[in-house]
Amino acid sequence: MGYNVAIVGATGVVGQELLTLFEQRKFPVDQLKLLASARSAGKTMEYGGRSIVIEEATAEAFTGVDIAFFAAGGSVSAALAPAAAEQGTVVIDNTSHFRLEPDVPLVIPEVNPDDLTWHKGIIANPNCSTIIMAVVLAPIHQAAGLKRVVTSTYQAVSGAGAAAMTELDRQVREYLDGVQPTAQVLPVASLPRHYQIAFNLIPQIDVFQEGGYTKEEWKMVKETRKILHLPELAITATTVRVPVFRCHSLSVNIETEKKLTVSEVRELLANSPGISVIDDPETQSYPMPAVLSGSDDVYVGRIREDNSVTSGLNLWIVADQIRKGAALNSLQIAEELIRRGLL
Amino acid sequence: MGYNVAIVGATGVVGQELLTLFEQRKFPVDQLKLLASARSAGKTMEYGGRSIVIEEATAEAFTGVDIAFFAAGGSVSAALAPAAAEQGTVVIDNTSHFRLEPDVPLVIPEVNPDDLTWHKGIIANPNCSTIIMAVVLAPIHQAAGLKRVVTSTYQAVSGAGAAAMTELDRQVREYLDGVQPTAQVLPVASLPRHYQIAFNLIPQIDVFQEGGYTKEEWKMVKETRKILHLPELAITATTVRVPVFRCHSLSVNIETEKKLTVSEVRELLANSPGISVIDDPETQSYPMPAVLSGSDDVYVGRIREDNSVTSGLNLWIVADQIRKGAALNSLQIAEELIRRGLL
Repeated sequence: MGYNVAIVGATGVVGQELLTLFEQRKFPVDQLKLLASARSAGKTMEYGGRSIVIEEATAEAFTGVDIAFFAAGGSVSAALAPAAAEQGTVVIDNTSHFRLEPDVPLVIPEVNPDDLTWHKGIIANPNCSTIIMAVVLAPIHQAAGLKRVVTSTYQAVSGAGAAAMTELDRQVREYLDGVQPTAQVLPVASLPRHYQIAFNLIPQIDVFQEGGYTKEEWKMVKETRKILHLPELAITATTVRVPVFRCHSLSVNIETEKKLTVSEVRELLANSPGISVIDDPETQSYPMPAVLSGSDDVYVGRIREDNSVTSGLNLWIVADQIRKGAALNSLQIAEELIRRGLL
Repeated sequence: MGYNVAIVGATGVVGQELLTLFEQRKFPVDQLKLLASARSAGKTMEYGGRSIVIEEATAEAFTGVDIAFFAAGGSVSAALAPAAAEQGTVVIDNTSHFRLEPDVPLVIPEVNPDDLTWHKGIIANPNCSTIIMAVVLAPIHQAAGLKRVVTSTYQAVSGAGAAAMTELDRQVREYLDGVQPTAQVLPVASLPRHYQIAFNLIPQIDVFQEGGYTKEEWKMVKETRKILHLPELAITATTVRVPVFRCHSLSVNIETEKKLTVSEVRELLANSPGISVIDDPETQSYPMPAVLSGSDDVYVGRIREDNSVTSGLNLWIVADQIRKGAALNSLQIAEELIRRGLL
């Protein structure tokens, strides 16, 4: 027995990853609809050994669909997700559009699966960096109480989609040809100024908002508070794009109510769902993005006590943000809905 | 009237940058000795339109030398700097060897020039990331009192010398040729395990020491305390190597005693020596390493109030660590010595 499934934004980085994961995790797909913009409609994509014709994403396309994964941008979700939900499709939305709506659960299955019980047709998948951080913050909060979180991120270009990956690749070739690299996509395609990412760092992800913080930084603050049910959590973020293709990395400084030793943190995290600890200075073992691309877990290393406060920790966290940060987390939401009989 | 000057480690990245800076800043060089290992002795380097034969660095080579810049590694400084100082040469040492010795001043001319007055022949040039951060922390401390500092760094490969720059370049070519990149230098050439830096991040700079912190991280903690004369300063660091050729970047979170607004910080830093503010979200203006390579100042942007504490700030800092982080700061020490009649 399977489900009728739709992917909106099937041709994008997250959409393609979802198809891979359906097969790897044997997700019970009965009929599969691949939806995209009118531009892609009529093209075909491979799934399970057969060709599927891409259809245009319209409100009518969801008839008979049990579950729809939206990964085509906020405006598409805004336009189509409510209509899909209204006629009975459960929407798992990978965009930021509904994440902070009070009647939309924002879910990481390892962290707050119970929030799935009150969904009203739309479930939001959190921001990629937020997922990666919150998976680690949750067990630490449970064990020692979070007091304050300061994070600086090192985010891969794939977080900005396939065009940004192509841009990094092209710029590296231009550099080797002795040509000034050209930039059209990063930091934000729709903004006037674009900067080289090859051999560079861009301390802007998404548009600027209040207080000089970017939207990405606000997502990390507000979504973490919502997921952890800690609306007053003291948390601040600086998000930076780095010339890495895939896997986001985060330096996270945490103050807790109760003091935790390094060995307590290692044991706690190693026994927490969705987390692997790679942390041995002796053998120079720590998580690195180029090594972990395509993996499912959130990897934690460089675990240190921070003695600049009474109970402080420094962590280095790496995860494939297309997997755990997007496609995998969305699929895990669907799996959890099935497990709970909510689909 | 000029000075007899020696550079120990003339063929290295910092040594070569010193030669460029001597000319650019019209440093009053009378005779110039270029010293290096026996391997390089006999080769020539260009300076001021003429060829200079490189001599082997020995204790005897400093006879008649007024000022010697050491940039050939800690063991060379350990072996030769005391002998040079004993016979009257003022040593400006770019290595970490003497930095934490109580009778060796550790100086950033914009921050603690008065420490030059008590030098005993050896003056230490601080760690590159430390210089870049301390130049910015000093005026903030003076204006508002530092309470706690949390930094995460994004450090260029040139901080590990010319071999690391060559390695990044080679790995990028291997990647484009479809070959698995080979690694021999980073994170630490003398340690057993080496990792790809192209399209990757290595969260290890220098060897591991107590508490799971790297030597680079301890340098940032201990040297900052010494330079700022704040032996108890609450400060913690996570240092990370990134695939950038030149210019270190730092995300710095600062807690102060007194609250500062963003406009107060902008004005304060813009009026502080050695600092340029590039900070306008409206025009997407912020410091980036690829743009600032070869510049002299420490650049600050992304200035934000951090409301996760009573008086908090987030800053993004970029500077050319071969210039201000090493060669330029060393030369500025020499210039300050001359200005004060201490040479």
